[in-house]
Amino acid sequence: MKAGLYAYPLTPFAGSGIDYQALDGLVARLSEAGVDGIGALGSTGCAPYLEVAQRLAISERVIAQAGQVPVMVGISALATRDVLRLAEGAQRQGAASLLLAPVSYQPLNEDEVFGLYQSLSAACDLPLCVYENPRTTQFTFSDALRQALAQLPRVAAFKLPGLTPADNRRLRALLPPHINLGVAGDGAAAVALGSGVASWHSVAAGLFPEACRALYLAAKAQQQHDTLAQLWALFTRFGSLKVMAASAALLGLVGHSLPQPLQPLGPEATREVKEVLVALGLLGI
Amino acid sequence: MKAGLYAYPLTPFAGSGIDYQALDGLVARLSEAGVDGIGALGSTGCAPYLEVAQRLAISERVIAQAGQVPVMVGISALATRDVLRLAEGAQRQGAASLLLAPVSYQPLNEDEVFGLYQSLSAACDLPLCVYENPRTTQFTFSDALRQALAQLPRVAAFKLPGLTPADNRRLRALLPPHINLGVAGDGAAAVALGSGVASWHSVAAGLFPEACRALYLAAKAQQQHDTLAQLWALFTRFGSLKVMAASAALLGLVGHSLPQPLQPLGPEATREVKEVLVALGLLGI
Repeated sequence: MKAGLYAYPLTPFAGSGIDYQALDGLVARLSEAGVDGIGALGSTGCAPYLEVAQRLAISERVIAQAGQVPVMVGISALATRDVLRLAEGAQRQGAASLLLAPVSYQPLNEDEVFGLYQSLSAACDLPLCVYENPRTTQFTFSDALRQALAQLPRVAAFKLPGLTPADNRRLRALLPPHINLGVAGDGAAAVALGSGVASWHSVAAGLFPEACRALYLAAKAQQQHDTLAQLWALFTRFGSLKVMAASAALLGLVGHSLPQPLQPLGPEATREVKEVLVALGLLGI
Repeated sequence: MKAGLYAYPLTPFAGSGIDYQALDGLVARLSEAGVDGIGALGSTGCAPYLEVAQRLAISERVIAQAGQVPVMVGISALATRDVLRLAEGAQRQGAASLLLAPVSYQPLNEDEVFGLYQSLSAACDLPLCVYENPRTTQFTFSDALRQALAQLPRVAAFKLPGLTPADNRRLRALLPPHINLGVAGDGAAAVALGSGVASWHSVAAGLFPEACRALYLAAKAQQQHDTLAQLWALFTRFGSLKVMAASAALLGLVGHSLPQPLQPLGPEATREVKEVLVALGLLGI
């Protein structure tokens, strides 16, 4: 599943039906702003309040309006029967991925939740995002369940509310590398993204995609900043000119780039520069 | 002068001459990465070690290779005579702006420094960037001198080493709004840009423009993050769905977007949402 900023539009109502024209307008804002994905029919889309037929009509409309932007369709429902119908419909309509929370009326146990995802994984070909939402589902995922779910063939991502940097590090060590971790809860997003979380599932981006995209880019690039600090430390020790001269030579771009009487860095300092450039991915292969 | 990321390439040497082919390669990396400006013949370009004729040949080559990217040419020299020759040459070659530090052999006083910039301002038509570099020039600018320089017709920018947010606020209050403030010293850049400094004059970007551009965008967008915190606070108080539903209605994008039994925010809460959206510039005019 593509990493990035997922924007969740509202579902506009008109009396007891849906205002599809307003929905088109909301989706157009998102594709124009260049979000990485559109999350249709999540909690913000009020999916639990809609009939299956309405939901299928909405996902079809959103996918048509989204153009090149991948649409992740929310298929959460109390009955597995409905989940599978929604999944089949979304797949036929051209959804890019599916989002499923273990919503409940009767409290669910771990076996029931695993069984739900197992049934879906067996029945569809799309990447699945496991949506943890204890507040609305009354269900809390254990690490053991997460590990089991990550082994299912279609499970590609987890959407976690308020994901902290510490939780992210723990889960990254626990889950296979192909699993994309994403943060929900807009107030927690910047810190999570800055600590290396791949995706942001955003309610605010559903209406204000440009402002949220700017924040997404900012937070992701925070990592860049923390990383480049190693280079600034070399500048402080050896002087920026000499570090850059050594770097340019290591890149094979220049023979030498210091005029006499300036002398290039010695072999030991040059080795240190090389190590940092390799660590920062600045030296190529 | 255009605000943004200015990248300062090295000057590659070949024996006692210049390796122009390697220079072309360095400049091509910069224009491909989309930096906002190229700073030719700064300290990183080893300008003080080059003859006037060499410097003119280098600035011509950089401007030719830079394509659409504006080139700011460093014209610092001990003698005003050489400064003016370099300025005239750069202007003829198509430089976008000029960069001048008050380099010295005999220590300079304030009148001498002001006179230097005054002579240049009278002799050229390009925007000038005043380059403060106490470490290499042995000269420290006073606020009174900065204010006097800012009144000269061509002075458009200051490049300040290690500019802090507090210094930036003070100088912004002191200098006219058309003066572009920029930070030099790569380790200080992120904090300065995050606090509203317009430009980053970067040594590292001269060789690693993409990594530095990512950091530049990140640091600028930090402001976005601080701003959106007001929206997250509303989410916490009223729930993200209801805040977004009220916002969409305020934007005129939807009539109502909550299914019964959910109720929209009352008039007082809606007023609060509106105030925040207006403050964040999210509501249009």
